[in-house]
Amino acid sequence: NKEKIISYGKRGMTLEEDLNDTNMYYLSNGTAVIHKKPTPIQIVQVDYQSRSTAVIKEAYFRQASTTDYNGVYKGKYIDFEAKETQSATSFPLRNFHEHQINHMKNVVSHNGIAFVILRFVSTDEVFLLESKDLFLFWERMENGGRKSIKKDEIISCGHRIEYGLHPRIDYLKVIQHLLLV
Amino acid sequence: NKEKIISYGKRGMTLEEDLNDTNMYYLSNGTAVIHKKPTPIQIVQVDYQSRSTAVIKEAYFRQASTTDYNGVYKGKYIDFEAKETQSATSFPLRNFHEHQINHMKNVVSHNGIAFVILRFVSTDEVFLLESKDLFLFWERMENGGRKSIKKDEIISCGHRIEYGLHPRIDYLKVIQHLLLV
Ligand SMILES: [Mg+2]
Ligand SMILES: [Mg+2]
Repeated sequence: NKEKIISYGKRGMTLEEDLNDTNMYYLSNGTAVIHKKPTPIQIVQVDYQSRSTAVIKEAYFRQASTTDYNGVYKGKYIDFEAKETQSATSFPLRNFHEHQINHMKNVVSHNGIAFVILRFVSTDEVFLLESKDLFLFWERMENGGRKSIKKDEIISCGHRIEYGLHPRIDYLKVIQHLLLV
Repeated sequence: NKEKIISYGKRGMTLEEDLNDTNMYYLSNGTAVIHKKPTPIQIVQVDYQSRSTAVIKEAYFRQASTTDYNGVYKGKYIDFEAKETQSATSFPLRNFHEHQINHMKNVVSHNGIAFVILRFVSTDEVFLLESKDLFLFWERMENGGRKSIKKDEIISCGHRIEYGLHPRIDYLKVIQHLLLV
């Protein structure tokens, strides 16, 4: 459905905006409670101009120690990271940090559900990749293998998510299916 | 054990520091994966001084739309807020925002586990109050009743948590017990 992909691409929405919208839809429909965590900031200087107004005058972006999204779906703990790439042929693994991989491994070891949502910007294609598969590609890299996941590999291991209107990126449809398997 | 309480009080640790330490202990011991969410910030102006250094020059604190802590314990979704009060006789409900109460109600409706951890600063006493009890006190207030929870009520409804060394505030012991009941 090329026409659909193009029309959504035209909207110029980022993956994060689409996911926030999707999560809001899930929340209002009673499907799940999933939120994006705030960006971690190191605050250095704050001006308290009045009792009620505090202005942060100096702060720095910190690296996140976990993934960006988490929440609850059917009693299960859900945890994921969303990433976009400009590359058309592969997904660079440098998009992930080692502590994010470790965090996802911890989540899985406590019977949580962890995954990543990957978007190829040039073609506006979105995939859900289960953490178990991400770990394999990560280990391949650590063992001296390629530093990215080939798009063909994502197509065969991952789960394609077609854009929709409500919700825009229905990733829980994939999770629901995996829970039934 | 008054001596113990006093000695811990002398440390001058905040509830947040004690809980972060506790969560780090849980993580390294393989008990649970629970993190504090970053403080939500509205960024207005950023200076990109070099390729790698971005300095936030103007930003404001935003109100959180959820609770501060969440994660996974034995496959279950855990969600809580931690609050301190200077009052010795009651816990003011204005410490909570309505959207935090609504968030906890949403969590419970999806079979997650929601609660609050309350600390009385003057006596350095810590209690875990289950969300179902918090909701009752909140509704009492909404129906024109008192705007706080009496300490006596917290003692009878809540679960006292004694300070420890490792972990400092073992709130999952309470949750484990509740899961077995
Ligand atoms: Mg991120
Ligand atoms: Mg808070």
